[in-house]
Amino acid sequence: MKLTPELRNSRFLRACRCEPVDTTPIWIMRQAGRYLPEYMEVRRRVKFIELCKTPELAAEVTLTAQRVLGVDAAILFADLLPILEPMGLDLEYAAGEGPIIHNPVLSASEVDRVRELESVESLSYVFDAVRLIRKELPKDIPLIGFAGAPFTLASYIIEGGSSKNYIRTKTLMYTDPGAWRTLMQRLSASLVRYLLAQIDAGCQVIQIFDSWAGCLSPADYREFVLPHLRAIIGALPGEVPVINFLTGNPALLPLCRDAGGDVIGLDWRVDLKNGWAAVGYDRGVQGNLDPISLYADLETIRRRAQQVLTAAENRPGHIFNLGHGVTPDVPHENVKALVNIVHELGAR
Amino acid sequence: MKLTPELRNSRFLRACRCEPVDTTPIWIMRQAGRYLPEYMEVRRRVKFIELCKTPELAAEVTLTAQRVLGVDAAILFADLLPILEPMGLDLEYAAGEGPIIHNPVLSASEVDRVRELESVESLSYVFDAVRLIRKELPKDIPLIGFAGAPFTLASYIIEGGSSKNYIRTKTLMYTDPGAWRTLMQRLSASLVRYLLAQIDAGCQVIQIFDSWAGCLSPADYREFVLPHLRAIIGALPGEVPVINFLTGNPALLPLCRDAGGDVIGLDWRVDLKNGWAAVGYDRGVQGNLDPISLYADLETIRRRAQQVLTAAENRPGHIFNLGHGVTPDVPHENVKALVNIVHELGAR
Repeated sequence: MKLTPELRNSRFLRACRCEPVDTTPIWIMRQAGRYLPEYMEVRRRVKFIELCKTPELAAEVTLTAQRVLGVDAAILFADLLPILEPMGLDLEYAAGEGPIIHNPVLSASEVDRVRELESVESLSYVFDAVRLIRKELPKDIPLIGFAGAPFTLASYIIEGGSSKNYIRTKTLMYTDPGAWRTLMQRLSASLVRYLLAQIDAGCQVIQIFDSWAGCLSPADYREFVLPHLRAIIGALPGEVPVINFLTGNPALLPLCRDAGGDVIGLDWRVDLKNGWAAVGYDRGVQGNLDPISLYADLETIRRRAQQVLTAAENRPGHIFNLGHGVTPDVPHENVKALVNIVHELGAR
Repeated sequence: MKLTPELRNSRFLRACRCEPVDTTPIWIMRQAGRYLPEYMEVRRRVKFIELCKTPELAAEVTLTAQRVLGVDAAILFADLLPILEPMGLDLEYAAGEGPIIHNPVLSASEVDRVRELESVESLSYVFDAVRLIRKELPKDIPLIGFAGAPFTLASYIIEGGSSKNYIRTKTLMYTDPGAWRTLMQRLSASLVRYLLAQIDAGCQVIQIFDSWAGCLSPADYREFVLPHLRAIIGALPGEVPVINFLTGNPALLPLCRDAGGDVIGLDWRVDLKNGWAAVGYDRGVQGNLDPISLYADLETIRRRAQQVLTAAENRPGHIFNLGHGVTPDVPHENVKALVNIVHELGAR
């Protein structure tokens, strides 16, 4: 990957490399989402999965969110789960219910049904979207590609959808470590191909979302998750920064660091200062405003954003974000205001 | 409260005081619950709330669970929410839906509708159950009384039920700290009266469940929760051990310790050894097997229980428990087996 000087010196990529910046860069997880009127306008015309699979529309909502908010990076509009379709899973986004997998892996003996993704051709709509976005995006705005981490994908495959207690996932993991390893290796090999293709198509940064791994104990994360995450991150080109994001368990942060990533995501459950210390100052951190702060008045939002910036101590390597995705019914003006507040208060 | 010698020297109360024990004591959160055939037998005859409000039945399921499992403490069968009824909230347990509050506090101006509990008389069914249980319980088995912590109760009052993101609760907390303080103070004063009456009726230990406080950042917990929890624990008689339990955020453990409690609950998200170090060895700890371990085979359960015991290093002050309540469909034989395993492996 050859970076233009504008991208190389962009505020966002400088922060990923822990280099000094003029002000703290910010983007918002799920920034092209339901809180945004421009996004809802598109969604009135097409279903979620259609939007994911139509490169022109995915590009449109990606670009609009970046432009409307004035954030320092765009993130590809896509979903964690469509990669599972060419791997043999029957995925449906039922209205109002979240994703459903109609043929979940119910036992260790069924793991063999999950095929490693040999070719990414069937996911070309993702890479087409990347190319369209990169062409239109401002020259100094990096495009973030992403994928779900193997634990999070495995939990969908085994539970057949989202889950409260991950009973089936953990039971398979605890009782048949061999089958678990097979599943995680197939997912990991597939994810590497998928992410490399995103980079080839024009992404400058990769974020890996381990949205559900916070349900694990440190010992289980170390044994059942970390080696696979490390293999994936190790297989990506070193010059593309990786943001390793996990939510729901601050005790896992030192292990997240060990798994790899140039930038480690912090959710709001941890004080950013302590979280960064746990991760180590040789890495960047991303976070970590409580997303629910955005329902408050602007004065409160400003005060809470300042608390996050204060905890970051203007240290190079901080990317401002929420601790998790923006919620669907948050006032969109508040999200825009937050971007301006961070740029103003974060100025060096 | 005058303790008999049998209770004073019981394995459980010795552990609460960080004194040496012959083996590690164990009880199971929600031990009188749906996984237990004897409990389901009673539930086929009465609804959940009827069971809570009929002292003879509440006593029966409490005593049966202790006897069948052979655990080192009984816990009063009751629920966190009925205390809200005499405080002016209209509570319903809808079948299969969890608790609903029909008149939630939707704004700061409605906080005044929540009345401080001046008399605990309307909750006499709870204290009657305590007296019945204490009369029948083995002489060396303490009875744990309990209540929900004020944050957890406030979140039910404001959300009208359980919640995913606590949007209304946090918005009130963030934007109107005065109204929040009023609500927390009313809850705290009410909880003190309720817990004192449980102790008067015959409980030897109190557990405070802050089941949902893990959704808070350390700064918010420190400002909005800690002072109230500290006031409650400080108002209870010093000779009654308090177990301060919170789930979902290991980063809050040092603040939990500051709030008080003789024993601090650890969920499975933290390594017990690190969790105890964060809490300090002058306190006991309770925990912390992942509840989902109980779906595995006995060999796996044994290995995972041993990991918890190894992390506790036979240090006096460890009470074995799951990291959160036992799940409804877990095989009941496995729960019984766990009790025996812990007593066997924990022997000094």
